[in-house]
Amino acid sequence: MLQVAILGCGTIGSGVYEVIEQNQDLLQKELKQEIRVTRILDLRTFPGEPFEKLVTGNFKEIAEDPAISIVVETMGGTSPAYEFVKECLLAGKHVVTSNKALVAAHGSELLKIAREKNRNFLFEASVGGGIPLIRTLGTGYAGQKIEEITGILNGTTNYILTRMDREGADFGDVLKDAQKLGYAEKNPEADVEGYDTCRKISILTSIVSDAEVNYEEVHTEGITKITPMDFRYAEKLNCSVKLVGRMVKSEDGVSVSVCPMLVDRDHPLYGVSDVFNGVMIRGNMLDVTMLYGRGAGKLPTASAVLADIIEAAKHMEDTVDYGWTGGHLALKPFEESCWRYLVRVSGTGEEKAAALAAAFAGSEPVCVPDSGETAVLTAPMKEKDFQAAVGTLTGVVSCLRA
Amino acid sequence: MLQVAILGCGTIGSGVYEVIEQNQDLLQKELKQEIRVTRILDLRTFPGEPFEKLVTGNFKEIAEDPAISIVVETMGGTSPAYEFVKECLLAGKHVVTSNKALVAAHGSELLKIAREKNRNFLFEASVGGGIPLIRTLGTGYAGQKIEEITGILNGTTNYILTRMDREGADFGDVLKDAQKLGYAEKNPEADVEGYDTCRKISILTSIVSDAEVNYEEVHTEGITKITPMDFRYAEKLNCSVKLVGRMVKSEDGVSVSVCPMLVDRDHPLYGVSDVFNGVMIRGNMLDVTMLYGRGAGKLPTASAVLADIIEAAKHMEDTVDYGWTGGHLALKPFEESCWRYLVRVSGTGEEKAAALAAAFAGSEPVCVPDSGETAVLTAPMKEKDFQAAVGTLTGVVSCLRA
Repeated sequence: MLQVAILGCGTIGSGVYEVIEQNQDLLQKELKQEIRVTRILDLRTFPGEPFEKLVTGNFKEIAEDPAISIVVETMGGTSPAYEFVKECLLAGKHVVTSNKALVAAHGSELLKIAREKNRNFLFEASVGGGIPLIRTLGTGYAGQKIEEITGILNGTTNYILTRMDREGADFGDVLKDAQKLGYAEKNPEADVEGYDTCRKISILTSIVSDAEVNYEEVHTEGITKITPMDFRYAEKLNCSVKLVGRMVKSEDGVSVSVCPMLVDRDHPLYGVSDVFNGVMIRGNMLDVTMLYGRGAGKLPTASAVLADIIEAAKHMEDTVDYGWTGGHLALKPFEESCWRYLVRVSGTGEEKAAALAAAFAGSEPVCVPDSGETAVLTAPMKEKDFQAAVGTLTGVVSCLRA
Repeated sequence: MLQVAILGCGTIGSGVYEVIEQNQDLLQKELKQEIRVTRILDLRTFPGEPFEKLVTGNFKEIAEDPAISIVVETMGGTSPAYEFVKECLLAGKHVVTSNKALVAAHGSELLKIAREKNRNFLFEASVGGGIPLIRTLGTGYAGQKIEEITGILNGTTNYILTRMDREGADFGDVLKDAQKLGYAEKNPEADVEGYDTCRKISILTSIVSDAEVNYEEVHTEGITKITPMDFRYAEKLNCSVKLVGRMVKSEDGVSVSVCPMLVDRDHPLYGVSDVFNGVMIRGNMLDVTMLYGRGAGKLPTASAVLADIIEAAKHMEDTVDYGWTGGHLALKPFEESCWRYLVRVSGTGEEKAAALAAAFAGSEPVCVPDSGETAVLTAPMKEKDFQAAVGTLTGVVSCLRA
């Protein structure tokens, strides 16, 4: 019998217990042996729950139990998750985690330990919930260069932006609603400021780059400044506004960024609405593909954990290679990245239009009646050139990348 | 050095040669050895092509060359592809194919031979072109029950339906255009009658069912009878019309079907347009995911072949298990499957409406002004009950499932 321990019995942790119990028949068939959760680490007690008797508050009972070969970490945060995971790997256990903060901060080191021990450190559930993103990026596109990953990776912000788009509602009002519905945290910063998306796109970039992205180096903007007027302009341009994590590889380096963007009606991500996630991948041979699904939620996330448990169980004595072998990835400076920009300035009239046209050669006017504003969509230009040009203008209301 | 032979140097075959040459650096890094195409089987000669000297018309030069360890079959059709592939597997070579006709007709037998020889028979490119569908279904959703696969699997028909939807054009006119543009064959039967989709959904069902679907048992309807009026009704219902291959597992069995369907605006497949393919997968734990991309084309398909070549190269002495271990899968009779139906009859007036309401309890009227028709959308009902009810009506113009 394969023994699994779970660290942290919150929503995801209890979900993992549930999927293992519910799919016993399939699992036994697939693994040709029984697989059971035999220990759960949590400081709380769970009277009446079916797993009540498995719970312990003592981590050593798991780390030092040689019968436990796979440890699932679903505590979240970096401490003590990092220390616990490291100890388990060093003790020769496989570790599966859903914890993006842990992977983004310590991925390279933990993967290195796993390789040295011929064990696996797997984290499918850390990005994209139930969407098999990491596995697909790591193995499905083998043999070609991934040139772009553009993703809607955060369900909370996508839900908020979708409702703003559909209802013309304010950010603050929809956020309050999302908090009531449990879609947003009481402290929503990690989601709405883009930090969550930043960690996720950093992990995905590391997977396809063979080196670690320091997520603190990624230019990150959130959605707190997005207004209903942005959506009126977006509609004019046959676009919606989405919070996008993006990696672009070109000859002069790798760009990684997180910011709200205009997404065109013909783009595969345009239809990714509500709490759903979607990731568009462009390879040098396969052109464009997209993966879509629930980026969060108890059972979708737990099912991604389960897929990793099975992977570990099939590779008990060797390390599955996902290409992220360490080293630090130097990113192209954000100032060198290239975008189009929707630039809005307050006021109307010839003078405003002339100032915008002068600042942005090759730009196209965008007119939203009764906005009291003048706006253009620029030609593609470098961020540093854009910043220099926008600095010459007065009354700038908003700039949105496209 | 790993030696690869290609059987059939058409669009896909020459594409495989191209992607292997173009991605040498990546491949050598990934496989830790050189990989080269050293033989190509074709009866034609290719003067001036870089692979000119690799071409042979003699299959034995490949089958009997022990230095060739991986054979790529891109001939299409079942004969001589079947005989050649079988001989290669029996000779202890790995085989990678893009040939859906071959896989649908002989998959179980060829997989069995591969297992017995500890070799691999891989066919990622046979369904969904560059979308890593087979690999994802086979491993990405491990440990859970796949309850539904609903896919737009044929780019030609999707292109035709998309243009009919957008332009209100006739099937025949768009088909002619598609033929001119090279999107449809001179003899378009395999695409427009749904046969291509049928083979593909049969393959996908086999992958998740551990048994072989006989594609000849799958109820298959094409799109030749779809008219602009169908799209007017679809629009009324916030739907589009798509050719859908579908597998639904329930307690009383597995249903597989191919037919044009009304697809709602909120469905992930709604946005899959033009020549793109999309496959929605529902698991008992992960809820819904979708994979999207180019279902055909030289380089996308060749890159799927390449991913399989790499898989084979990493498993030279063992068989990667995709779950399709043989046996015949008995399908639930189509008459027992459950749908909603859009039923249109010619003529208007109380009497027509009353006849439809009487035939279909719980149905909702659907009104397209100036159509000269009366129509309803039925409640969910079994196909056999629907057929009995529709038989009582006169002047039936069309029935479309939803």
